[in-house]
Amino acid sequence: MSVVYQRVALIGLGLIASSMFWAIKRGGLAEEVTGFARTPETRATAREIGLCDRVCDTVAGAVEGADLVVLCVPVGAMGSVAAEIAPHLKPGATVTDVGSVKRAVIDAVAPHLPDGVHFVPAHPLAGTEHSGPRSGFAELFDNRWCLLVPAEGTDIEAVANLRKLWEGMGANVDEMDPEHHDLVLAVTSHTPHLIAYTMVGVADDLGRVTDSEVIKYSAAGFRDFTRIAASDPTMWRDVFLSNKEATLEILGRFTEELFALQRAIRTGDGDHLHDYFSRTRAIRRGIIEAGQDVDAPNFGRGKAQV
Amino acid sequence: MSVVYQRVALIGLGLIASSMFWAIKRGGLAEEVTGFARTPETRATAREIGLCDRVCDTVAGAVEGADLVVLCVPVGAMGSVAAEIAPHLKPGATVTDVGSVKRAVIDAVAPHLPDGVHFVPAHPLAGTEHSGPRSGFAELFDNRWCLLVPAEGTDIEAVANLRKLWEGMGANVDEMDPEHHDLVLAVTSHTPHLIAYTMVGVADDLGRVTDSEVIKYSAAGFRDFTRIAASDPTMWRDVFLSNKEATLEILGRFTEELFALQRAIRTGDGDHLHDYFSRTRAIRRGIIEAGQDVDAPNFGRGKAQV
Repeated sequence: MSVVYQRVALIGLGLIASSMFWAIKRGGLAEEVTGFARTPETRATAREIGLCDRVCDTVAGAVEGADLVVLCVPVGAMGSVAAEIAPHLKPGATVTDVGSVKRAVIDAVAPHLPDGVHFVPAHPLAGTEHSGPRSGFAELFDNRWCLLVPAEGTDIEAVANLRKLWEGMGANVDEMDPEHHDLVLAVTSHTPHLIAYTMVGVADDLGRVTDSEVIKYSAAGFRDFTRIAASDPTMWRDVFLSNKEATLEILGRFTEELFALQRAIRTGDGDHLHDYFSRTRAIRRGIIEAGQDVDAPNFGRGKAQV
Repeated sequence: MSVVYQRVALIGLGLIASSMFWAIKRGGLAEEVTGFARTPETRATAREIGLCDRVCDTVAGAVEGADLVVLCVPVGAMGSVAAEIAPHLKPGATVTDVGSVKRAVIDAVAPHLPDGVHFVPAHPLAGTEHSGPRSGFAELFDNRWCLLVPAEGTDIEAVANLRKLWEGMGANVDEMDPEHHDLVLAVTSHTPHLIAYTMVGVADDLGRVTDSEVIKYSAAGFRDFTRIAASDPTMWRDVFLSNKEATLEILGRFTEELFALQRAIRTGDGDHLHDYFSRTRAIRRGIIEAGQDVDAPNFGRGKAQV
């Protein structure tokens, strides 16, 4: 329990910002947390559930005097929000974000920020399929990774403090350059999401299999896709539009492999299939050993829940 | 608690058979359950953990006198096992299976069965990424669906008893014809599995992103794919080879949709992406309402487990 920042401003009050608020409170990491959301409805909800010490009706009010400003808006909105807050930033303040794409956010935000304000882009690798101010919880970042993507020459203390905040919220912190970040995320997150969205859309479209059949019989594999494909549409639209190059590259590799497996099915090449499926098991084992998932069958659904 | 069959024989002692044994015991659904597995190792494990009332060293020994024989072997092995057991089946006995494909299993098994033996193909839509005799548990089928696929004219009592058994093991039971079954499963299970296997293989292959990065940062979506892609390689090889037509059809639809989304990313068509992603959210809602998944964020991992 030690204060890292006197005042933190959360701009945008969705899943990540609301989880940050509860995690900051849990850790006693800031004296005051202010918040701003674009819609009056979200601000009213935030006030109702005690999300943020002070909910402001203007973005200027939220960032004034803040030592850390966290942009928690969809990637496509980062640039205009940065332009809006720039005149109100306290000299020496740090600006950070939580966007899933880093190169595009840096290009959109950095030009607006005045000298003397530190910019330390960040990306916590945590989330659920829920969104909005009510969806946050303090434990979201526990044992998850947060990637910091500071430009070379960024103030060392500003980076160290942001690291301290994320560690205080339960996360492990790594640093990475923006291009590598965007490629890694295209593999581990963006392409898997696009594929899951596609598969769920196909199921919904297929005339000869009814939606109610798809839903009833989803336990056979499909439901894991639907969880991913239930994520926030605006956030994900912006991710794909702003990480276009890496996503298209990984998609290209994906369809290449898929066509090879499709060909093995068509030609009855069982060895190819078996070899491929055996190799992927080892990766799962690695993820469990790295503590990024539990070994309970079916995510623990099988035994604990029906 | 009421006995449905005097003696049940489980042929093949993997995840499904071992879960059936524990579920039959929980429900008091049979007087005796015999078991057979091809390898001495599996039979030794079964004896060690008390799986089956009697583990037999020959398949003939296991099926002799059994009122119900359940084929729990990979789909590709169903035909040869059926040929092997045929001479030892008790007149009036019922033979069933648990294969994920139905047309191919029926074609492979039915010709071997003698007159006076009832064949009621079945498929429980339940599983985990674990396999082998130690992986089973009594609750696997609770509130899951089991599809019965009897041919027209099958003995009504034989079908009714098998339904009673599955209901006694906790499952909901539906009947379906084999062609429709294979199409529905191609959508809800087979194609999603192939896609997950492909994505995990791509991640493993990509030189510029290390396996350790993929594993560390998997929480961003990828780990749900790895669970699916950790399923038994032999079982899945057989599924794809024996449900070739439906899988290839759904794969064709999938790549068509994927290419449309890929094109939207390339051309920057945000509306197309947003509309698509909004539609898939509704399906997720339906699955939760149908009781086939829980609404806990991240499958309950977020709050309950780190």
